[in-house]
Amino acid sequence: MAGTDKSRGAVAFAPGAGPAVVLVAPQLGQNIGMVARAMLNCGLRDMRLVSPRDGWPSRAALAAAAGAGEVLARASLFERTAQAVADLNLVYATTARPRGLAKPVLSPRTAAAEMRASVADGAAVGLLFGPERSGLANDDLVLADRLVEVPLNPAFASLNLAQAVLLVGYEWYQTGEGPPPGQPPSGDALPAEKAELMNFFERLEAGLDAGGFFHPPEKRQGMIRNLRTLFQRARPSQAELRTLHGVVSALMKAKRRE
Amino acid sequence: MAGTDKSRGAVAFAPGAGPAVVLVAPQLGQNIGMVARAMLNCGLRDMRLVSPRDGWPSRAALAAAAGAGEVLARASLFERTAQAVADLNLVYATTARPRGLAKPVLSPRTAAAEMRASVADGAAVGLLFGPERSGLANDDLVLADRLVEVPLNPAFASLNLAQAVLLVGYEWYQTGEGPPPGQPPSGDALPAEKAELMNFFERLEAGLDAGGFFHPPEKRQGMIRNLRTLFQRARPSQAELRTLHGVVSALMKAKRRE
Repeated sequence: MAGTDKSRGAVAFAPGAGPAVVLVAPQLGQNIGMVARAMLNCGLRDMRLVSPRDGWPSRAALAAAAGAGEVLARASLFERTAQAVADLNLVYATTARPRGLAKPVLSPRTAAAEMRASVADGAAVGLLFGPERSGLANDDLVLADRLVEVPLNPAFASLNLAQAVLLVGYEWYQTGEGPPPGQPPSGDALPAEKAELMNFFERLEAGLDAGGFFHPPEKRQGMIRNLRTLFQRARPSQAELRTLHGVVSALMKAKRRE
Repeated sequence: MAGTDKSRGAVAFAPGAGPAVVLVAPQLGQNIGMVARAMLNCGLRDMRLVSPRDGWPSRAALAAAAGAGEVLARASLFERTAQAVADLNLVYATTARPRGLAKPVLSPRTAAAEMRASVADGAAVGLLFGPERSGLANDDLVLADRLVEVPLNPAFASLNLAQAVLLVGYEWYQTGEGPPPGQPPSGDALPAEKAELMNFFERLEAGLDAGGFFHPPEKRQGMIRNLRTLFQRARPSQAELRTLHGVVSALMKAKRRE
């Protein structure tokens, strides 16, 4: 993915670095600037912006970032969420109200421990945050391996964007000293990058289209979402993705006898 | 103390309640409003203001509190810090830079655990926060039993007032009942029974045999094992298994164009 997007070049993933912070369709430049501050508070530097509403770069963001301009200067810009997470192995979506998606819901603390272990194992991880008002759409949530919900007063749980980033980033920072708690997954099991996963999904779905799988057509989107969620939950490694490609090829070659 | 200050009457300390949040000489009404929100996020309701610079009540505070006006409405006003903490048993002062005072310096997490234990024991506890620019003066720090320092990137540790309250309040909230850390995926996602899973595996593998997937033959067993491990890791539900059956059928029906 990095090759196809010039803007990515400068922010090549640094091994051992903290999670990328991916802001999907942020509305106010001021909030982006405050997120930059919250990120730097927590030692995070890889900011990724997906279609910020008011364009980019943003004067309002720069003004609000006071002292954290370096984060904005290195921020990378994408059109679609799938592009922004393409080089990541493990993606966490923050949401105030998990919507019954079949994905694990973690607290920031549990997520931070897991991220730290994954990063120690060489994984590139990222945190997805949705637009100020609406939060992440289901199509974005589907890209995530895990959901993160901040445990707060259920009668008043709303946080602004920078506060949400701060709380999750804070938990990340607290895991810094000492060894990561969980046993890291063994070498080969590093999940494939999202771009490879997307590539597999598209190939699978083309095959399914050819086989008339998606009917009625109005259910197509939901069916795709469920299927992607299912495969994503398995967190296939690169090697396993190759196997899955082989499975699709072999099945399409097989004579159907049923 | 409560007796000497009429405004305190309404906010008599409620046994078992969370820490009071004492803002010493806050400058901007807007920040007071945002602190009210952060407090309510964390289930805290006892706000105490010591000589707010721009007077009290404050329109700016009310506007920024959106949704947390109840906290402002119940806030109590004092002239001096000593009055604001008079009815408290245990006071924590937050500071970015402990100045070599001979007081224990705790992280918010440690402080939260200690506060929870003290409250359970019947103590009234409070958190002191200084003015936006300067932080707490030494005369205020002297009133505290403990200092609290938030562990953040030492090169960029500055937080705004509401963020500082949020982080300490968040740690307080986490010591409460708190939701279990790793909730299982919701309802329908109960994994299918193993017999159904085996049934799917056998059908899949028959299709793969027909498509010449398993070669060389001596690798067949290992390949099957890896494939089953991968699908098993996704822990498909009954409904998802039906979908996977449909995927196999559709792919075997599809014309292979590759």
